[in-house]
Amino acid sequence: MKGNQVENIQIHKISAGAINETEDKVAVEEPLQIQLVYSTATGQMLKDIAVTMRTPGNDEELAAGFLFTEGIIKAASDVHEIKQAHADENGIQVILKENIKPVLGNAARNFYTTSSCGICGKASIDAIQTVSQYAALKNNDVISAEIFYTLQNELKKQQKVFEDTGGIHASALFDVEGEFIMLREDVGRHNALDKIIGAAMLNNQLPLNNCILLLSGRASFELLQKAAMAGIRIIASVGAPSSLAVEMAVENDVTLIGFLKADRFNIYNGKERITI
Amino acid sequence: MKGNQVENIQIHKISAGAINETEDKVAVEEPLQIQLVYSTATGQMLKDIAVTMRTPGNDEELAAGFLFTEGIIKAASDVHEIKQAHADENGIQVILKENIKPVLGNAARNFYTTSSCGICGKASIDAIQTVSQYAALKNNDVISAEIFYTLQNELKKQQKVFEDTGGIHASALFDVEGEFIMLREDVGRHNALDKIIGAAMLNNQLPLNNCILLLSGRASFELLQKAAMAGIRIIASVGAPSSLAVEMAVENDVTLIGFLKADRFNIYNGKERITI
Repeated sequence: MKGNQVENIQIHKISAGAINETEDKVAVEEPLQIQLVYSTATGQMLKDIAVTMRTPGNDEELAAGFLFTEGIIKAASDVHEIKQAHADENGIQVILKENIKPVLGNAARNFYTTSSCGICGKASIDAIQTVSQYAALKNNDVISAEIFYTLQNELKKQQKVFEDTGGIHASALFDVEGEFIMLREDVGRHNALDKIIGAAMLNNQLPLNNCILLLSGRASFELLQKAAMAGIRIIASVGAPSSLAVEMAVENDVTLIGFLKADRFNIYNGKERITI
Repeated sequence: MKGNQVENIQIHKISAGAINETEDKVAVEEPLQIQLVYSTATGQMLKDIAVTMRTPGNDEELAAGFLFTEGIIKAASDVHEIKQAHADENGIQVILKENIKPVLGNAARNFYTTSSCGICGKASIDAIQTVSQYAALKNNDVISAEIFYTLQNELKKQQKVFEDTGGIHASALFDVEGEFIMLREDVGRHNALDKIIGAAMLNNQLPLNNCILLLSGRASFELLQKAAMAGIRIIASVGAPSSLAVEMAVENDVTLIGFLKADRFNIYNGKERITI
């Protein structure tokens, strides 16, 4: 359902050598397109400002806050109206008062791009599947839960910058026997994953459909999308997945594990690859 | 120093009612501009693809991986050379082989923007200071460490979606007495902060120079930049700050606290506002 912040899904919990199907909740992740409407000498302009992957709720605040913190508007008094732009709740329009000029030059210079999505989650999932050259690749491995239990310990051993600072993300690759292949760290989790996939590409190790990808934090749409591009079919994350990460896992036949610990984890999709 | 992944800084640790100056390490956060060079019928093209805030190291892999996971290049064999683009190590050029056409249409459609920075960290810090209308605002509060000890407990009480899912970020505002004002949650930490600042703007509560901003996770450049736009002078984060977050705090006269717990925390800048 649209507009919810939490989504109920069926998962499998692995704990103490047992597997149980249960209902669980994930945080909803959906794209929001922020549009700006303002007046010019020749009439009203509509400009697409940004698409951000957000949890629904307080969308008017999010749009207003984004435009303010990016320096595009200066105050609430600049705003005539904020309203939904699409029937599907994934677009919002901030309409400025007639005499207000947004500061767009600055914004354009200051924005940077990160990876993405389209306007609607569903459309973007379809888009990425057509883009990935490894979409048809299968993985028929069956991996013991015991192997996943060992991964986080190995991650800790390898994470040098985290040990020093406590403030960095990591992506790591393992083979399906749990043997460590490589790890990369970065303040941006998407960068840590790009480094891993870039290294694999430059070493002619692609596709990675016979590897396990371990994420030190949460699993988001963006990370699932990047992993799909490299043909990755098994992802274990130390943190929680978002709703759209789970959806991406289903669409791309990815085994998605979350809340990985030394003796338990949750399976959000693809439990046929795991045995206990 | 450029190129390091870890930076040593002087901090103050507050613990058990004592304050101690000590050396600590933070993860380095620096912008990297990724440029693509490719051949066309009329000659060689140089295109700015993205600026990402990253931890230095493995920049060639990061650039190659980014171009691959965004679908702009297909394989290592597309690449002629990857080399540093700027003398300051914050730019990298991926030069394609002469017969290779990058898939840019797709990329342009699929990118979304998030907030930012310029090419060089220092330049962007200067830029944001000129942009913030509240740059000259002071905060002369002196706040007891005891007040900070209570904040995380209040955060937990208010974080509804986190309680359900374990997978969401929060930003919360408190007054300098530690009284809760509001909280917003989102899968994107920048969105949670934009929602808070947007709500404050729409309620005519700006500037926020007499508030405490609490961040549920790490403190990055992006969050410090957004907070500066709203005039925020006191930020407490549950996680670690990046090097550039600390630099932003110094430049904007922000008291920056990290690793906030119920009985201790680290002060990265602005200790004159804290008493024990």
